[in-house]
Amino acid sequence: MSYYEVRKTLREFMAEREWQQFHTSENLIKSVAVEAGELLECAQWGGEPDPDKVQEELADVLTYCYLLADKMGWEPEQVILQKLEATRLKYPPEKSRGLSTKYDEL
Amino acid sequence: MSYYEVRKTLREFMAEREWQQFHTSENLIKSVAVEAGELLECAQWGGEPDPDKVQEELADVLTYCYLLADKMGWEPEQVILQKLEATRLKYPPEKSRGLSTKYDEL
Amino acid sequence: MSYYEVRKTLREFMAEREWQQFHTSENLIKSVAVEAGELLECAQWGGEPDPDKVQEELADVLTYCYLLADKMGWEPEQVILQKLEATRLKYPPEKSRGLSTKYDEL
Amino acid sequence: MSYYEVRKTLREFMAEREWQQFHTSENLIKSVAVEAGELLECAQWGGEPDPDKVQEELADVLTYCYLLADKMGWEPEQVILQKLEATRLKYPPEKSRGLSTKYDEL
Repeated sequence: MSYYEVRKTLREFMAEREWQQFHTSENLIKSVAVEAGELLECAQWGGEPDPDKVQEELADVLTYCYLLADKMGWEPEQVILQKLEATRLKYPPEKSRGLSTKYDEL
Repeated sequence: MSYYEVRKTLREFMAEREWQQFHTSENLIKSVAVEAGELLECAQWGGEPDPDKVQEELADVLTYCYLLADKMGWEPEQVILQKLEATRLKYPPEKSRGLSTKYDEL
Repeated sequence: MSYYEVRKTLREFMAEREWQQFHTSENLIKSVAVEAGELLECAQWGGEPDPDKVQEELADVLTYCYLLADKMGWEPEQVILQKLEATRLKYPPEKSRGLSTKYDEL
Repeated sequence: MSYYEVRKTLREFMAEREWQQFHTSENLIKSVAVEAGELLECAQWGGEPDPDKVQEELADVLTYCYLLADKMGWEPEQVILQKLEATRLKYPPEKSRGLSTKYDEL
């Protein structure tokens, strides 16, 4: 299935419920953060997180990310790839190999 | 570009920097939440959020979501669509139309 | 130093900078979440978090919590103790001892 | 009630349930972020947040902040006041008055 079909499915789902009215960019941003908190709950006490719960919560984070991207007129995978190019410059392999250090401390 | 090409690009990027060693499912989950916090910062004080900053931070949230999905063996858009089917049952249009109420209060 | 002195110090600090205008309850709530994300960044990649960074970010979370409590007319420690009484009932020691299980799964 | 009494109450509560074993600094940090996400849920769709829900979720954020402070050997209000002194230098009133701009953009 292509991105355009996923977007169409999401748009129809929201239109059927008249939920687009709640989907300001700010509300979608808050929603990404709310769902990221629920995803984090899967790992709250350490140990291996339950894959079923992780999948459910990851779905919610991704859905709001996709709705936000659509709201802003962006394609999610383009957004990922574009940022990756910037990250490439900040973290050249020879300086960052095997390190989790933030670029401003490299 | 297909999902498989995006995944390949991400995998190569991480392999070049030997960063996969940091990408336990728990660390990726925490990273989604950290970046969601930075995305939220774009909307911290209200007003229209700066689209350039939103795009950068949304990119980071999406990237960690994609890495987590890959780690778990899932495809991001499948994850979205599968959860949407469950949400369809919890929020039938006739009960939820025009409401932002949570399903357990409908 | 008593809570009232801390509150007075915070209020004066905000008044000097005319920052109370930004402190709606919603903006303060978002700010707590933004700062909690920065606190989480201290533990993003595992290992022992750097105490100096933890202290800085915990300070920010606490400060916005205190500002929110003040905005709502509550005292932070009363808020903690009142909720603790409710938690006592949800998690009786004999059922919850040594378990990190959520109450609805006990 | 003094801070020491609050701390004593929290410590006894945790000891009765043998929950201190889960309270590594990292787990407490994650817990602050999880609860901050639940607090944010109160403001997810805009409008005035429900004070009862806000109080419940703020209580959880504050409780984990207090537990983290205790774990690290700090007093919460000292942590707030110490950071406030650093913020005073970063945001002098004459430069920051009436602005929500971040210090590095002032």
